[in-house]
Amino acid sequence: MNQFQYYTPTKVIFGKGTEENMGALVQEYGCKKVLVHYGGGSVKRSGLLDRIYQSLDVAGIAYVSLGKVVPNPHLSLVYEGIELCKREGVDFILAVGGGSVIDSAKAIGYGVTNEGDVWDFYEKKRNASACLPVGVILTIAAAGSEMSDSSVITNENGWVKRGYSSNYCRPKFAIMNPELTMTLPQYQTMSGCVDIMMHTMERYLNHADNMELTDGISEHLLRTVMKNAKILLNDPENYDARAEVMWAGSLSHNGLTGCGTDGGDWASHQLEHELGGMFDVAHGAGLAAIWGSWARYVVDAGAERFAQFAVNVMGVKAAGDGMQTALLGIEAMEDFYRFIHMPVSMKELGIEPTEEQMKELARKCSFWGRRTIGCVKVLEEEDMYQIYKKACN
Amino acid sequence: MNQFQYYTPTKVIFGKGTEENMGALVQEYGCKKVLVHYGGGSVKRSGLLDRIYQSLDVAGIAYVSLGKVVPNPHLSLVYEGIELCKREGVDFILAVGGGSVIDSAKAIGYGVTNEGDVWDFYEKKRNASACLPVGVILTIAAAGSEMSDSSVITNENGWVKRGYSSNYCRPKFAIMNPELTMTLPQYQTMSGCVDIMMHTMERYLNHADNMELTDGISEHLLRTVMKNAKILLNDPENYDARAEVMWAGSLSHNGLTGCGTDGGDWASHQLEHELGGMFDVAHGAGLAAIWGSWARYVVDAGAERFAQFAVNVMGVKAAGDGMQTALLGIEAMEDFYRFIHMPVSMKELGIEPTEEQMKELARKCSFWGRRTIGCVKVLEEEDMYQIYKKACN
Repeated sequence: MNQFQYYTPTKVIFGKGTEENMGALVQEYGCKKVLVHYGGGSVKRSGLLDRIYQSLDVAGIAYVSLGKVVPNPHLSLVYEGIELCKREGVDFILAVGGGSVIDSAKAIGYGVTNEGDVWDFYEKKRNASACLPVGVILTIAAAGSEMSDSSVITNENGWVKRGYSSNYCRPKFAIMNPELTMTLPQYQTMSGCVDIMMHTMERYLNHADNMELTDGISEHLLRTVMKNAKILLNDPENYDARAEVMWAGSLSHNGLTGCGTDGGDWASHQLEHELGGMFDVAHGAGLAAIWGSWARYVVDAGAERFAQFAVNVMGVKAAGDGMQTALLGIEAMEDFYRFIHMPVSMKELGIEPTEEQMKELARKCSFWGRRTIGCVKVLEEEDMYQIYKKACN
Repeated sequence: MNQFQYYTPTKVIFGKGTEENMGALVQEYGCKKVLVHYGGGSVKRSGLLDRIYQSLDVAGIAYVSLGKVVPNPHLSLVYEGIELCKREGVDFILAVGGGSVIDSAKAIGYGVTNEGDVWDFYEKKRNASACLPVGVILTIAAAGSEMSDSSVITNENGWVKRGYSSNYCRPKFAIMNPELTMTLPQYQTMSGCVDIMMHTMERYLNHADNMELTDGISEHLLRTVMKNAKILLNDPENYDARAEVMWAGSLSHNGLTGCGTDGGDWASHQLEHELGGMFDVAHGAGLAAIWGSWARYVVDAGAERFAQFAVNVMGVKAAGDGMQTALLGIEAMEDFYRFIHMPVSMKELGIEPTEEQMKELARKCSFWGRRTIGCVKVLEEEDMYQIYKKACN
């Protein structure tokens, strides 16, 4: 069992109507001016944004706003946000949206409080020493960024998608009303469920001498998301199912499902990041499209763990040796992805990269040959290329 | 499903040797003088206290110390600690021990930062508005106070044991090295396991429309503690089993197993608090001694939930109606308590209160008729007396 640190300082306020007292909550942090950061028009159309402005007005808190965050959020908007915050004296960022908006808010927070180019952190050139406080009103259950230490940004210059993690950016609070996720398109809801599951699967499918307390929590979380994703397929306004998925999203990426593990594999995420950077696909869908190919490529190096996953998560009956069970588990997972209309190949994802593009994906993912990824099996550039190739159809 | 707040800001540092850099960790909180607070001689004998002083010396942090905390920690020592801290200008408390030491530290922290008598908070006369920062080096897995918002103190004037909860007292950090718990007497280890389980059972056995994510986490946590308690019975130096129990202790009382519930029942705890105040028994053992009687007294009001507990936690095969299954579950729990040499009656606990004492226990527990306890079944003074009476043999 590995040593671990567990640090989740985010105050979660969960349930119906919890966004109502948002202004008073922001006030607790004694800030002078807030940046309200959001994405597309849905938070405007739903009236949520107006309610937020009203709540801030009532609390007597000044604010500026910056929308237009896109999925796979862009560095250029982060720069714009940093300039805006500096100009306006913003000392608190309120992210209204899902992972893209929160990640963009965190990046802006880093940029305002640290000298130099914020992209340096994402390039792993140096470390941040602070971040503006970020609060969240969550409208998409997926990324878990509302409690996590991570932020993923896409640099349009070269279309590379990179993550940076530090405790400084963990949100101060997260207001989580499952009702706010009810109007999401079905594809985005299901893509979110895949993302949530992958945050736990990345930690679970590893090479460590694990804790059984963590294992059981992870297995139950995965089963719960699968069960409720199926419910939402036919009944997208089911409050309880929305709530189960939403809370699972936070627990899946706040560190809980990694306690005592070796940190996890994360190769699927890194392979997907390049897809997201180059083709701008929905993150969860991209993960579904790549996971099976990754799993089959590495399974021989971790058959026992994959077999445990097959039995305890996918409900597969142990068959023959561990390897056989492991492969049945991978199939069962893909069957589930199909059931919730998620792609299990890049073709189904709607992209057909050329040979040259696949080589470029692998080149970028290996930082031009400077890094390996994964721990179940350590993957080099050539392995990455092979996985992309397997994931084509 | 109920609204909930989840707030666990404590930084956990878990694993072998994690106490080594303790001085540097304390330094991060920028304090001027630390109170090192501890209990009996075991932390001295083991050399832990010396290593802590050394670590503080190396970090250049001034300190004073106050030992002598007893199980069911006394208000008089809390007063002594408050005076000491004020006199010495202490601005950080380092609790080295288990729940009693941490709870005493929290009470001192309240007393230093709030005007008036600290006992007022425990009497629910008024609320605290601050607490000194508390850090923890945990040596007993039981109370979960290392991450919780609660503190329980015994007032020797009348021997009443009262709890007070607020987010102010949640520890800043908790250093958790399972090796530090290996020298505990068997009775204390097992008593700790009961306490850990009860923190989840109090939340689980309720009247709410619960979250399945929380339910499954709770059920797995309980099964894991039972499994590893049995291992520790024969192999008390088993590191992995110590680690599972220790981490379960924190997760069981940091709020995780209460998310989406109605807050839980807590009658068993309140009934035990009076026992602990009057007879100074080990808290977990006292809980084991009272639980079965409480459970049988209230089971008809929550048979369905008790039946779920029986099947999912105790591995009972559903038999007949829910009530029958529920009763089998209660029996199975008592069998487990017996298996780990925990008492299932007050007699086995080693106390035989007189009729008058039982009436006094009920009077105190009902705050002299001013409060009810519990939610599965709301209990008045007469109910409390009946449960004490049932728990005699």
